[in-house]
Amino acid sequence: MNACIITIGSELLDGTRLDTNSKWITEKIAGYGVVAQKIVSIRDNELDICDAISETIDRYTFIFITGGLGPTHDDITIESFKKVFQLNSRIDSNYIKEIEQKFLVRNIVMPKMNQNQAVVLDGADIIDNPIGTARGVYYQHSKSKFFIMPGVPSEMYRMMDDIILPNYIGKPIELRYRTIRTSGIAESRLSEKIENLMSLHSKDFDFSFLPSYKGVDFILKAIKENAELDKVADEFYSEMSPYSFGYENDSFIEFIIGKLSENQFTISLAESCTGGFLGKIFTDIPGSSEVFKGGVVAYSNSIKVNQLNVSNEKLDRYGAVSSEVAKEMAQNVMHIFKSTIGLSITGIAGPLGESNNKDVGLVYIALAFKNICICKKFNFNLNRDLNRKLSCYTALNMIRKVIEE
Amino acid sequence: MNACIITIGSELLDGTRLDTNSKWITEKIAGYGVVAQKIVSIRDNELDICDAISETIDRYTFIFITGGLGPTHDDITIESFKKVFQLNSRIDSNYIKEIEQKFLVRNIVMPKMNQNQAVVLDGADIIDNPIGTARGVYYQHSKSKFFIMPGVPSEMYRMMDDIILPNYIGKPIELRYRTIRTSGIAESRLSEKIENLMSLHSKDFDFSFLPSYKGVDFILKAIKENAELDKVADEFYSEMSPYSFGYENDSFIEFIIGKLSENQFTISLAESCTGGFLGKIFTDIPGSSEVFKGGVVAYSNSIKVNQLNVSNEKLDRYGAVSSEVAKEMAQNVMHIFKSTIGLSITGIAGPLGESNNKDVGLVYIALAFKNICICKKFNFNLNRDLNRKLSCYTALNMIRKVIEE
Repeated sequence: MNACIITIGSELLDGTRLDTNSKWITEKIAGYGVVAQKIVSIRDNELDICDAISETIDRYTFIFITGGLGPTHDDITIESFKKVFQLNSRIDSNYIKEIEQKFLVRNIVMPKMNQNQAVVLDGADIIDNPIGTARGVYYQHSKSKFFIMPGVPSEMYRMMDDIILPNYIGKPIELRYRTIRTSGIAESRLSEKIENLMSLHSKDFDFSFLPSYKGVDFILKAIKENAELDKVADEFYSEMSPYSFGYENDSFIEFIIGKLSENQFTISLAESCTGGFLGKIFTDIPGSSEVFKGGVVAYSNSIKVNQLNVSNEKLDRYGAVSSEVAKEMAQNVMHIFKSTIGLSITGIAGPLGESNNKDVGLVYIALAFKNICICKKFNFNLNRDLNRKLSCYTALNMIRKVIEE
Repeated sequence: MNACIITIGSELLDGTRLDTNSKWITEKIAGYGVVAQKIVSIRDNELDICDAISETIDRYTFIFITGGLGPTHDDITIESFKKVFQLNSRIDSNYIKEIEQKFLVRNIVMPKMNQNQAVVLDGADIIDNPIGTARGVYYQHSKSKFFIMPGVPSEMYRMMDDIILPNYIGKPIELRYRTIRTSGIAESRLSEKIENLMSLHSKDFDFSFLPSYKGVDFILKAIKENAELDKVADEFYSEMSPYSFGYENDSFIEFIIGKLSENQFTISLAESCTGGFLGKIFTDIPGSSEVFKGGVVAYSNSIKVNQLNVSNEKLDRYGAVSSEVAKEMAQNVMHIFKSTIGLSITGIAGPLGESNNKDVGLVYIALAFKNICICKKFNFNLNRDLNRKLSCYTALNMIRKVIEE
């Protein structure tokens, strides 16, 4: 069973609004064994809408259409659909009364144009809208089943969840894929690492890699019914060690917090170029206070000196972006905050470099733990935003490594 | 000039990833007078890719394709494109050396599969990728111009901004709409405030409101050719005062930094529940060091006592989430960091509340300035993420108010 999703609305094609309906629908129908093969977004234009609908006939089992059901002049989805299949229509006068009632509870007289929303197509089912005035449509033509829904996400969600998924799509299936999450390894290197295992299982599984600045996700999809998904997922997980840290929605920061907690370690931060970003990432997680003691955002040199006791001599001699200063920051924040681990990040985020010909993207990350202190130098060489993001995730990988060793 | 956007990646069709590239591209090309007519998302499947590309030939002036340029087995965009137009290809051995170099600066030996990224299509232009290994492609067939770019947003942005838009698309046009940005006022209240002005100009303009946690954007779109866009935009801007702070891509944090800088004020932060988030927001902006001195992430009570000299007595008596403690934090961080303004945020971000029956979403924000210190109490009553975001943006609104008064 395959599907096509058509989202209609000029605001989706001029950069005003991001289409989030499609992703939501694809995820939902996947749980019913329906594979979305195509997503199409088009403007409120009759020709474009008719074309997009016509192209799907007999190519897809399910066609989900959202948007263009409002009462105003640019809402023409129903009219266009009617043209494609040459359907007759009538006005549902009972529904006009219902809409009037929906407005009355808000103390508003129904604007006349809302009568458009009472159009009913011959041969089609009506899908109720419990929280809005735009009703949905179900229509079958040949082998294709069409659903038309409002573009307002909350209204569309309700129609799908309450009516369409349980009554028209079938039964929920057991999902036949697993996501293995990794951090600290590049996509191509990860692929090399599991090359043999992929060859071994290529008859029963599809594989894909999803890289982001946070790490690489590996998706294992069973394509044979008897494929041993969980067992094979565990094999891949082991092969990816020590970079694999979890499955599905597990997050790396939660993994790190868990590791710190297991070992009864606490951590404090001295952030310069990341300016509080890593602290933000820790505190995104409820309960992080168990391991995260806090930090100093030492954006200016005077704060490094006064709050973190970094020596003026080192700052003068090596500059704020140096391994010497990074180490002092990490060690001192550990002592001042009485935490097990002290971590510092100092670098040049960009877009402009600093003195001493140091390049944008140059970052030192130091980690102090008991009486050792390691410091690594990186040159991310990206834009400000990415240099900062990568600094944070690289720091988390350093924390992981130290804990595991 | 019209355009079609094709985004390729199975992760876009199974609910794993949200396609944000399309919206970004449509917005950019609109500034060059190019109208996006269709957005299509498809899986990493040769047949689907070939179909989608073939359907665009001679129908669109520009076709922007993203995704599927990575080094692994599921990256088949170039191969598919080659099939559609029956192109020959060769390996660019110089580029292999370049990729090797890109890996070397990160102390990694290039995995062999990255050689795939050195394929060059006959008759096509290469588009350089300054921040990644996947190069782009430009190819013209009949009246259609095709651009293939990586799916990684940051890499795609650079290619579009640096190379494609200036060299291949033409000249930027005057946009016939303006966005007025506001902060600190709700959508419905803003709408009321400018009701009369909207009635007055409704023949020449379309209006829309785009609310987010950062504030409400108001979009003014000229629908008549002789509409005096800039003049009317200024009228709306004045009417929205003191909430309007800029136009188009102006950001509120840059506005605040500008205001601080104008007045030669500096600021330091004492963040509890936001854990560094507000510091991160300040330091997102290059040059923020001029006004932002740094901060203390005082996530645990001991840090509040030891780093910010908050009295144990007050902590015991009123709790960490109280106006008394918030005020001490703000005043003390101002003194310790020797800044003009000290700002503190302490609250219960959630999902769980703390002692004393204080509710999730309860937040105190205090601002110290010279010898005054104001503190406001909020109950955002949302989820952790939104409670934290709103805390930061509410704090920025408090800073604005103090500076302007």
